[in-house]
Formats: sequence, C-alpha cells, structure tokens
Amino acid sequence: MKAVGDGSALAAYAWLTRAVEPGHRDLWVYLKTFGAIDVARELHAGAAPAQLQALVGRRAAIDHAMDDLDAARRLGARLVTPADDEWPQARAVTMQHAMAAGAERVVPPYALWVRGHELAPLLEKAVAIVGARACSDYGRYVTTQIAGGCAERGYTIVSGGALGIDGFAHRAALAADGRTVAVLAGGVDKLYPAEHARLLCQVADSGAIITEYPPGSENYKHRFLTRNRLVAGLSLGTVVVEAGRRSGARATAARCRDADLPLMVVPGPVTAAGSQGCLQLLREEGTIPVGDASHVIEAIGRIGVDTAAPIRGPDTELDALDQTTARILDTLPRRGGRGVDEIAVRAACSTAVVTAALTQLEIAGLATRADGTGEWSRSPGPGRR
Amino acid sequence: MKAVGDGSALAAYAWLTRAVEPGHRDLWVYLKTFGAIDVARELHAGAAPAQLQALVGRRAAIDHAMDDLDAARRLGARLVTPADDEWPQARAVTMQHAMAAGAERVVPPYALWVRGHELAPLLEKAVAIVGARACSDYGRYVTTQIAGGCAERGYTIVSGGALGIDGFAHRAALAADGRTVAVLAGGVDKLYPAEHARLLCQVADSGAIITEYPPGSENYKHRFLTRNRLVAGLSLGTVVVEAGRRSGARATAARCRDADLPLMVVPGPVTAAGSQGCLQLLREEGTIPVGDASHVIEAIGRIGVDTAAPIRGPDTELDALDQTTARILDTLPRRGGRGVDEIAVRAACSTAVVTAALTQLEIAGLATRADGTGEWSRSPGPGRR
Repeated sequence: MKAVGDGSALAAYAWLTRAVEPGHRDLWVYLKTFGAIDVARELHAGAAPAQLQALVGRRAAIDHAMDDLDAARRLGARLVTPADDEWPQARAVTMQHAMAAGAERVVPPYALWVRGHELAPLLEKAVAIVGARACSDYGRYVTTQIAGGCAERGYTIVSGGALGIDGFAHRAALAADGRTVAVLAGGVDKLYPAEHARLLCQVADSGAIITEYPPGSENYKHRFLTRNRLVAGLSLGTVVVEAGRRSGARATAARCRDADLPLMVVPGPVTAAGSQGCLQLLREEGTIPVGDASHVIEAIGRIGVDTAAPIRGPDTELDALDQTTARILDTLPRRGGRGVDEIAVRAACSTAVVTAALTQLEIAGLATRADGTGEWSRSPGPGRR
Repeated sequence: MKAVGDGSALAAYAWLTRAVEPGHRDLWVYLKTFGAIDVARELHAGAAPAQLQALVGRRAAIDHAMDDLDAARRLGARLVTPADDEWPQARAVTMQHAMAAGAERVVPPYALWVRGHELAPLLEKAVAIVGARACSDYGRYVTTQIAGGCAERGYTIVSGGALGIDGFAHRAALAADGRTVAVLAGGVDKLYPAEHARLLCQVADSGAIITEYPPGSENYKHRFLTRNRLVAGLSLGTVVVEAGRRSGARATAARCRDADLPLMVVPGPVTAAGSQGCLQLLREEGTIPVGDASHVIEAIGRIGVDTAAPIRGPDTELDALDQTTARILDTLPRRGGRGVDEIAVRAACSTAVVTAALTQLEIAGLATRADGTGEWSRSPGPGRR
C-alpha cells in the first residue's frame, strides 16, 4: 500500500482532513488505535474496513496532502495535530473526555488547520459566545458587554464568525484588547461570510481562526453543524445571547450539553422572536441564566474565587430594624402625633416595648417626640416606607 | 375569665384577628391546640403564656369582636374560619402542610375576612401573578397574556391588588370573564391603593377580596410582607412578571419557596431595571422560566395532561433527510450542473450512494437532472438552506 503525501504523519493528517468529513466517531477511534499514517495509507488503498472506507467514497484515490500543506503555508496557516505541543487541552478535544462514558456525541477533530497564535495557551481559558445572525440591538448590547467583560478578565472569546451575535462577540474582544478565536466551517482561505473577511483577519491576528477543513474547502451547510461542536468543545462553557426557534446557536448549545460543559443563556423579552430559542433553553434543566460577565465567569471560573455578587438593592437603615420596631414605626403618623398607649394598641405591644423602640427610632432619626404633648410622629426624611 | 364577644367561636376568631398580628407560628399552634374560644378568653384576661401574651400587648383588654362582625356584615363581608366548609384547601393554609417538616415559615391565617364568593371553590385552581408596581409596557403585555390565558382555562388569578403588574393581572382575569382574588393588607373597607378602589370592587364581585385584618385596619407596610405569604400560599404556584432588585414580588417569591410551591418567572431584558429581580430569581435553583400561559399551566397543572408544547420551528422537508443525503444536497450547485463523480468526491461518498440519494432528492423536488448533460443541480424553491 502506498503512503500518502511524503509519508509523514503530518501529510497523513492533511490527507485525512480532505478525505473524510470530520465528526465520525468510529474513524476517530480507528485513528487513535492505528495512527494517522497507517489509516491514511489503508483508506487511500481502499483497504480499510467497509464502513470506514464508505466514509471516504470517491475521495480515496485522490492525494492532495502536500498541495494542501503548501497552500496553508502560503496562507500563513499550519496544520496542528494531536501530537503537537500546542494541541489544545479542552475537554472535548482530548481523548480522555471523548472516551468517557456518555460522551459518544463528542468526537474530537482529527487535526486542525490554524491561522494565528499557538492554540494551547489561547484556549486555556476560553468561553464561547454565540447567537442569532439576525440579532437585535439588545442582543448586540449584551454581547458586547459580556464578551468585553470576559475578554478584559483574560478569557479568550470563541465564536463562529457569523453575522450578528458571533461577529459582535469577536469585535468586543478585539475592542477590549483581548483574544478571540473563530471556528470556521470551510478552509482558512474561504472566509465566510464575505462581510467578515476583514474581521476574521483581525481575529487571526489577535487569536486564531481554526477549521477542520483543508484550504479551499467550501462552507457547506452541514459543516456549520459539525463545526458547532468545536465552538462549544474548545471552550469552558457556552453563552447563548439570542437564538430564534431554529438556530445554529441552539445546535451549539446542544453540543455544549453533549460535552457536559456549562450552558449559559441570556434571558430576553419572551415576546421577541430572537428570544424564543433562549426561553426554550432556559426551560431545559441545568441551563444557567446569565446577565453579565461576572455571571459567566462564576459559571466557568474557579469555584470560590470567581463568584458573582448577588443582585440586591442597597441596604437602608430600615432593614436593620427588628419586626416589632418596624411595626411600631409603621404606626407613627407623619402629621400630628400619637401617644404611647395608642401606639401600643395599634402595634400590638406592651407600652414598655413601645417606649424602648421609640427611643431606638429617635436615635436613628426616624421618630420625633413633640415637646409640648409628648406625642410621637414619624420624622420627615428619606426613609419613606 | 370572661369570654370575648358573644362567647361564640366566630367572635373569638374576630377578636383574635384584631388582637394579634397574623403570621405568628407559636400562636397558630396554640390556637390549633386549645381552640379559638379558650385562647381568646385567656389572652383577653392576660393569662396566656408570657411569650404569647406579649404578642397582644395593650390590645388584650379591648373587645371589638361584635362591632367588627357587624361592620363586616354592613360591608357585605364575612369572617371565614378553619371550621367553615368554604375554608380553602390550599397547601399553605392547611394544618397538614404547615405542620410538615421544613415548613416552619408557612404560618396559616387564624381566620380570613372575605368579601366575595365562597373560598374553597374559588381557590381550588388558583395561580398567583405578581410583579413590580412600576412596570413596563412589556410587563403589562406579558401579564395580560398570561393572566388572561390562565383565567380562560379556569384558573383563578390571585394577586395583591397593587398598582402595576398586580392590577393588570386582576384586570386581565376580569376581561377574560374569569375569576380573580385580591389578598389585602388592611380591612375590606380600606381598599388600597385608592386608585384601585373600583377595580377591587369588581374583583370582589368576580371572585373575592381576602384579608387577615378586621374592618377598619390600616394598610401598614409590614402587613404587606405578611400578606404576601397568602398570595403565594393560596395558589398552586406563583408567577413573577417583573421585579426590581428590591421588590415585594421577590418577597412573595420567597414565600412561594417556603411553601414548596412552584415559582415561575418571566424572563425579561437583563438590561432593564424591572428585570433585575427576575434575573436573580431565575439564577436560583428550581425557578421555572415561563413565557406564556401554557408554560404556567404545565408547571401547576396535572402531570401529563397540561403539557406545554416545546418551542420549535416548523418542520421542513430538509429535516427528514439523513446526514449523507443532506451532505449530497449541499454539494449541488444552484446554477449550472455537477456530475455524479464530482458530487461523490465533494460529498465523500461512493457513486452508488450518490445515485440513490439523488433519486430520493429528485422525488422530494429538491434536485433536478439536466436533460442534455445528465448533470445535477439544486431545484429552485423554498427549501433554501
């Protein structure tokens, strides 16, 4: 059987990324078992087990491996394989996790075509932010806030490079002088969508553009779905900002769940079409609602270190009052005055309790005693209840 | 020791509702143990255990029981006690639930002053809908949709009669010819807020206004917090529509949790002040996000009968295609044509698989074969991917 390319492992991986669509678990397991060189040689010769050979079909006979590696080099890109030091350690691309029980739907990439910085450090702390192409001003605003906030705190923002939320996530990371990664569904030279060609170049400069497909590969629809598992899988968690009823973001959310990673969703108005998918995701078990970067970092960060402050209003003097004293305060008139006995009746207390509480309230500036009558009233002031 | 009022149990309950602020668990347990007549007589004489006597304070000596019952009669109201057939069977007002482990914070009412219809049938299927006074157009719209939808399906809408969400919940129930109940924090003659006096009369006509306080009682601030436990407790579940960081609706939500009842929250834009409380509630464990009446009814209705349809987009022909066929479809050009061999290379299949798939796609109206060349293209039409 004839080797592919120059016989190297790199050439074998290059050949495989063109010959087989990614995401086939059986092939990945076979590859892990026998190694890229032998598997590529066998498939090239048409000698692999039938169900694997069927995955390659008419591509078996073709060998573009060296051309693809050359093309990548000309494009400033490279092929990264699991043997490389820079191979990311994210759960969904490591053998340990993929082989774990219940992770059948997580199929690591065979290899990755990359334009940009070294993957391992770039993806050490990464969060995926995805959403609708047809996003609203609300979605754009929240994406910018969350992506910017996470990027400022050292997280790499991973997304799919699409119009709408994806694009704003990348842009916010760039604006925060942070790092961002786009996972594409075609070759590194087939920047998609065309409107984002310039943005994707900036993404490559700041972080990386990553794809499982060799140079020249088209952005076929089905490839976006396959690609989504890497957006989720290369990150510590996925944030969905806006998603319609049918949307790629929901597919990415499903891959996030497959990989047992935290799925975060930004709630939106239930009346908005762009929030229907978010509502459905929120209604599924285990989804974490998030409203800002601190919520995201709490969900994906180190336990006990990156904790979001709970949302609550400012404390007021009134919060400090015990129940009985608060009740006594409530019985004080704002105009005129009221005697201790009458207050005791209204507040259901003894006069002794009322007298003690009124002293406390007077010190706190909440109650006033009239000089002449000795009757009590509510002090004017900010503590309006 | 002298009996209160005319010595009847009804008079004893009337006396107790004026003498003691509601919501004291110890007193409620004492009442359950010794009965209203004896407990009222004892407290009136100042002879109850010290910590219970302290709850009555200076009110001990006063006996307005018969006056209060007369006043209620003149107002078209009545006092309902746990001995009455119409006493509601909601979890949080029955002895069984209140005495259950973990329910220490659920204190049933001693008795209820009521203007309106019989409580038991009215509250058999009830849902609480509460929210901010300062609500947005969004909150108003969603409240109207949810309250109207639940009322149409036979649920009684329970709320607190306040401005904002509460008022819109009551109004939507009335507009749907449904039934609605307002739980007040003062006497049935102290309709609060004044702007809702007319609305609350309509509520009484359609359903009921309910309060733990005898006629003439003021709407003290602390009473709203005590009242909130009944809004939640008289219902099968509570829906919070809009809630700021500090809001009564959040207090009602807490009482809903105390009673182990489903807490539902309508998500809103995380950028809106009126949705901050909702976001925090959504981030707590066990909260059920809801967007419409069907979600609410699924949460509180009978299991398997009242199930909300999941949110998803319409099915298309394309959904029915298997992965390989979808991939082959993706390789078909919209203009020009492509031969079977070339399609096989692009789709990574054998030509036999491609030929079979193309036949299937042709039958489905998705692929077209050019008469002259025999090449295949994508059919024009709605199935754009």
